[in-house]
Amino acid sequence: MTVEPVRIALGPEPSELLARAITDGGATVSELGQARALIWDGGPAGFPERLPEGVAWVQLFSAGVEDWFDSGVFDRHPGVVFTSAAGAFARSVAEHALALLLAGVRYLPEHLRARSWRQREFFPHVGTLRGATVAVVGAGGIGRELIELLAPLGARVLAVNRSGRAISHPAVVETVPAHRLSEVWSRTDHVVVAAPATPATRHLVGARELAQLKPTSWVINIARGGLIDTDALVAALRAGVIGGAGLDVTEPEPLPDGHPLWELPNAIVTPHDSNPPRLRTVAFAEHVADNVARFVAGRELNARIDVAAGY
Amino acid sequence: MTVEPVRIALGPEPSELLARAITDGGATVSELGQARALIWDGGPAGFPERLPEGVAWVQLFSAGVEDWFDSGVFDRHPGVVFTSAAGAFARSVAEHALALLLAGVRYLPEHLRARSWRQREFFPHVGTLRGATVAVVGAGGIGRELIELLAPLGARVLAVNRSGRAISHPAVVETVPAHRLSEVWSRTDHVVVAAPATPATRHLVGARELAQLKPTSWVINIARGGLIDTDALVAALRAGVIGGAGLDVTEPEPLPDGHPLWELPNAIVTPHDSNPPRLRTVAFAEHVADNVARFVAGRELNARIDVAAGY
Repeated sequence: MTVEPVRIALGPEPSELLARAITDGGATVSELGQARALIWDGGPAGFPERLPEGVAWVQLFSAGVEDWFDSGVFDRHPGVVFTSAAGAFARSVAEHALALLLAGVRYLPEHLRARSWRQREFFPHVGTLRGATVAVVGAGGIGRELIELLAPLGARVLAVNRSGRAISHPAVVETVPAHRLSEVWSRTDHVVVAAPATPATRHLVGARELAQLKPTSWVINIARGGLIDTDALVAALRAGVIGGAGLDVTEPEPLPDGHPLWELPNAIVTPHDSNPPRLRTVAFAEHVADNVARFVAGRELNARIDVAAGY
Repeated sequence: MTVEPVRIALGPEPSELLARAITDGGATVSELGQARALIWDGGPAGFPERLPEGVAWVQLFSAGVEDWFDSGVFDRHPGVVFTSAAGAFARSVAEHALALLLAGVRYLPEHLRARSWRQREFFPHVGTLRGATVAVVGAGGIGRELIELLAPLGARVLAVNRSGRAISHPAVVETVPAHRLSEVWSRTDHVVVAAPATPATRHLVGARELAQLKPTSWVINIARGGLIDTDALVAALRAGVIGGAGLDVTEPEPLPDGHPLWELPNAIVTPHDSNPPRLRTVAFAEHVADNVARFVAGRELNARIDVAAGY
């Protein structure tokens, strides 16, 4: 018995990366006429007026799909399942957070300034995530991806989420509900801020919180600048209250020229580039491979658009 | 039915970290008189002349145990199993390698030099390990630990070992035998050198190998300086033949003041501090917890010393 391969089309342009994603997911690339699904790497403008009858699923590139709703494409294809790229970009941001945290813990900023082999001076400053407690404040998509990266490093994660519903993962030693966040600061070695920006999370990290951390603690922010009180952070970095800060987002943003964060030796600022346009394509390919595998296996697709609900 | 706890003693000094390792491993800390095993965090000088009869296993702190052989301790306790700390320190070195690689891929050296928010200039330079091929040259203890860290980042590992015996791991796309190493350079995005220093591995990375890499490739060396031809590397870094280098070891070592590697913006030099004395204690505690768990379960212990063979 030969099993018929699942045929999936690609548009509007050919793409080697996305073709590989389709193959990786266990399907084969075909013309739209023979396809059961379509991976669409473009906007609504060039989308086919009518899809062939065999097409049951369309994967779109964007995470937000307001313009697709406006275009009427969904209404023209009531029998087709559409999925977005929502959640596909969490991994790149989590990787960036890990890069910042490891750079801090391994004392790379000071190493980069060195012009001489001062091994004995460096020895006491090189840290490890092994056995270290890392508070992941906001355990949504990015936070959960980060936990996967921290696990093999041997970090012990304090996961903070709104509900406090336990995150079941060997690396998570405790899930703390947001209303008990104040207990976390004195219990952790490092903090990664990955929470959404809401009135409740504004200046979540301020002078009082920083004071409870350790002189070796690194604070990483890959969420929104307003979650940290920048003036309090600058004061803590200057006084050595904490070890350092890795910031992909700032308040104000963009960070103006001449701001003290540019000059502080224990601050790493990246200009909100944890998920640059170039990487979105790679992340999208991963998302596609995963969804193709789900489609082939008849499992539920990720990021299915609810046309009736409008998102 | 109550199960009798496995009692393990600690010496020569009390240690909170090691006591927790014993507990983490599923045993309880006790006096030597009642113990079935001893974790010994010191040298041979203060070691007990005669161990109580109940003690079946002794865990030593050092990875090399020449002085223990010289001391006669093993001969005095022929019925006791001794284990060393061999392999315990691979994880810290692997973590350092990952920190250097991620710092390079995420363009952190240039970010650290920035004094202005130049997002659009940075966008094209921020890379990812997701979907990237990483050649791990020398897949021994450190290499295998590194593969565990690279896996959740979505890297595709080309593992190079002497035998070419396949390393079975979802992240390893191919195990390449050392005699086919020349095929690797043009197929990889990044290289981590983790091989032992032997006449056969001297200047393993030279001008010809570097020329086959990409302008975005990072070369990491956490093994021995002599594995890389330093002059060829400096030339490649200057010309932009590769993206950068992260070096915990150099040739010559220590790297002398005024050496071009200190000034090159795409080189990160750390003075052979990937496993500093302070971290060895933490790594040892992990090793102890693992071995205690094995002892409690009656499984084979890691790093058992073969007294007859002399290592």
